[in-house]
Amino acid sequence: MLAVRDLPLRLLLGPGPSPVPTRVLEAMAHPTIGHLDPAFLALMDQVREGLRVCFGTQNPMTLAMSGTGSAGMETVIVNLVEPGDRVVVGVCGVFGGRLAEVARRTGAEVTTVEAPWGQPVPLDRFHAEIDRVRPALAALVHAETSTGVHQPLDGLAEAVRESDGLLVLDCVTSLAGMPVEVDAWGIDAAYSGTQKCLSAPPGLSPVTLNDRAVARLERRTRPVPSWYLDLTLIRKYWGGERAYHHTAPINMIYALAEALALVDEEGLPARFARHRHAHERLARDLAALGIPFVSAEGHRLPMLNAIAAPPGVDEAVLRRRLLLEHGIEIGGGLGAFAGKAWRIGLMGHGATTYAADSVVTALQRLLSR
Amino acid sequence: MLAVRDLPLRLLLGPGPSPVPTRVLEAMAHPTIGHLDPAFLALMDQVREGLRVCFGTQNPMTLAMSGTGSAGMETVIVNLVEPGDRVVVGVCGVFGGRLAEVARRTGAEVTTVEAPWGQPVPLDRFHAEIDRVRPALAALVHAETSTGVHQPLDGLAEAVRESDGLLVLDCVTSLAGMPVEVDAWGIDAAYSGTQKCLSAPPGLSPVTLNDRAVARLERRTRPVPSWYLDLTLIRKYWGGERAYHHTAPINMIYALAEALALVDEEGLPARFARHRHAHERLARDLAALGIPFVSAEGHRLPMLNAIAAPPGVDEAVLRRRLLLEHGIEIGGGLGAFAGKAWRIGLMGHGATTYAADSVVTALQRLLSR
Repeated sequence: MLAVRDLPLRLLLGPGPSPVPTRVLEAMAHPTIGHLDPAFLALMDQVREGLRVCFGTQNPMTLAMSGTGSAGMETVIVNLVEPGDRVVVGVCGVFGGRLAEVARRTGAEVTTVEAPWGQPVPLDRFHAEIDRVRPALAALVHAETSTGVHQPLDGLAEAVRESDGLLVLDCVTSLAGMPVEVDAWGIDAAYSGTQKCLSAPPGLSPVTLNDRAVARLERRTRPVPSWYLDLTLIRKYWGGERAYHHTAPINMIYALAEALALVDEEGLPARFARHRHAHERLARDLAALGIPFVSAEGHRLPMLNAIAAPPGVDEAVLRRRLLLEHGIEIGGGLGAFAGKAWRIGLMGHGATTYAADSVVTALQRLLSR
Repeated sequence: MLAVRDLPLRLLLGPGPSPVPTRVLEAMAHPTIGHLDPAFLALMDQVREGLRVCFGTQNPMTLAMSGTGSAGMETVIVNLVEPGDRVVVGVCGVFGGRLAEVARRTGAEVTTVEAPWGQPVPLDRFHAEIDRVRPALAALVHAETSTGVHQPLDGLAEAVRESDGLLVLDCVTSLAGMPVEVDAWGIDAAYSGTQKCLSAPPGLSPVTLNDRAVARLERRTRPVPSWYLDLTLIRKYWGGERAYHHTAPINMIYALAEALALVDEEGLPARFARHRHAHERLARDLAALGIPFVSAEGHRLPMLNAIAAPPGVDEAVLRRRLLLEHGIEIGGGLGAFAGKAWRIGLMGHGATTYAADSVVTALQRLLSR
C-alpha cells in the first residue's frame, strides 16, 4: 500500500498548485475543531478580512467557498444569473470558455467575445458587444491560466454599469500575485482559488460580491439552482447568524488563514514585486535559451509563463523527465496550445529567482542531451 | 491576530467533525504535489479502492468529490435527475428535507414520505408511494444525523427497480461506522462525508454509482446543470483519461488516504463493534443519569446519540459551558429538535468508551451544580 509520507517531493512550477510553505502545512495539521466553535468563527472573520485586503475591497460579502476555484466560478454565476439573462463572456483561453459554459448551463443567453490564444480579449469588441447586448452580467478572466495572458479592463465597469449589468472578474491566478482592486476597478463580483499565488493547498475558493451584486442576489425570482453553492444560505453561516449550512472544511480554512498571515507579513506590494522579479529573470533566461513566449508581449502575466514547447521533441516526454528526473513540475498546454506550449508557474511561495533558475538549469540539461 | 496554532483543543463529540487521528493530520501536512503527478494519481486509485471497501461495492465509479457531504448529495441528485423526473424522498429529519430541496431545484417533481422526528420513514408508506408514483429516483437517509435514527431499507431496492427507478442512499454518517452494503442491498448510488466515521477533516465527499446509475447518467438528454459536480466530466479525471477538470484538493486526499489506511488496519467489523460498544456504554450511563433518547428504541444509531436536553436549564448555555470549561463539543438540536435535543457523536476515532465516559462525567458535573 502507498503511504502518503512516501510520496515524492516536487518543486511545483506548473499552473497550480504552487509550493505550499511549511507554516501553512503545519497550520493545516492543527487538530480539527468544530465549524460552530466560537474560536473557529473568530478565525473565519479574520480570513474574511485577509481576503478583503487581497481583493482590494470593503465588501461585507467576502468569504471562502468550500470547493476549488471552479466552484467559485460556478458560485458567482449561478447566484447572479437567472434563466434567460443575457451574459457576455470574454474568451481567450480555457477559463473564459469554462465561464461561458457554466453560464449556459444556468439557461442564460451567452454571447462570447473571442480572441486568438495568446492575446487578451480586445476591449473595443467587448465594449461593442456590451453596447449591443446590454447584458445582465459580463465576465472576463483577469489572468488566463491557459495562455499566460493579462486582461486589461479599461472602462468596462462603467460600460457594464451603464446597462445595469454586473461585471465579474475571474481572479483565480492573479489574486495575491498582482494588483487586484475590486472596489477601485468597479468589479461587482470576483472569485479566486487558494492554490495559486496564495500558496495554500487547493480546496477553497475566495469569493467577493459588492452591494450591487448582493442586491441582484436578493432580487432573484427563482431559487439558486445549486443548493451547495447558494449564497443566500451560505451568507447566514459566514455572516451574523452563524446558521449551519454545510460543514466547513475546517483544516483548509486553517491553511488559508496562515497563508493570509504570510501575505500580511510580506505586504502585497513586496509580494507583487517578487512575482515580477522572478518573471523577469525567467524571461531573460528563456530568451537566452531561444525559447519564445506564446503570450503576446505587453500582456504577459508574471506568475504564469506560457512558452513554446521546444520544437522537434516530444514535449510530454520532456515534461515527464523534468518531473521524474529533476523533481520539477511544469504544465503542458491546454486547448489550442495542447502539445505546443508549456506553462511555467512562478506563483506565491514559488515566485523566486532561484525557482526560475532551477527550471532553466534543468531545461538546459534536458535539451542539451 | 489569531494564530491557528493557538486555537484550543477540543474533544469532538458532536455530529461531526469527529476527532482526527494524528496520523491523518500528519499525512495532510505532507508537501503538496500536483494533481496530475503520477504519484498522486496512484494515491487516488488507492483511495477509490479503500472507498469501495467501505461502501461494500465493486462499482468502478467510486470517487471523492471536491466538497463536503452536501456536495456529494447534490452530485448524486443533479447527475441522476432531469427536470420533470418523479422523485420520492423519505424525510424524517433535516437531511431528508435537504435531499428533497436539492431534488426540487433540479426541476424534479418531488414527493416526500414524512415521519415524526425520532422515527424512521415507515417502509409501508414508502413502498406505497413507490408503487403509486413509480419514480425515476427514490432517496433515503441511512443514518439521519439530525435525529440519530437508523433507516431500515427492507425490500426497497426491488420495489424501486421494478419501476425502473434508482435507489439513492445518504451514508454521510453511517459510512465506516456501521455496515453499508451498496452492492448487496441493491443501492444504485450513495454518498458520504469524510468528517464523520472516517475521521478525516471535512472537505471531501465519497460517492459511488453502479452501472445502472452510470447508464442513467449517460442517457441524459440535457447537460448536468452543475459544471463543478458534472460526473460525465469528473469521471475522465478519476478514470483512465486523467483529463483535467478542476484541481483536486490534494492534501485533503492525503488525509482521506491515511484515514482509509486506518480503516484497513482496524478492519470494518472491529470498527463497527467499537462504535456499538461505545454507544452501549453511553446509553447505559445516560439512562443512569435519567436522560432519555429522543430517537425511537430499536432504530438508534451507534455513532449519533440524540437525547433530550435536560429540562429546566438553557441547553445552549450548558452546551457552551461543556465546550469552554470541559473542552467537549456536542451538538444542539436542529429543526423540530432545536432547543430540545442534544446530539452526542461517537464517530470514527471518537467512538471509544473513554470518550463516552468523558462526556457523561462532564455532564454530571455541570448538571449537579
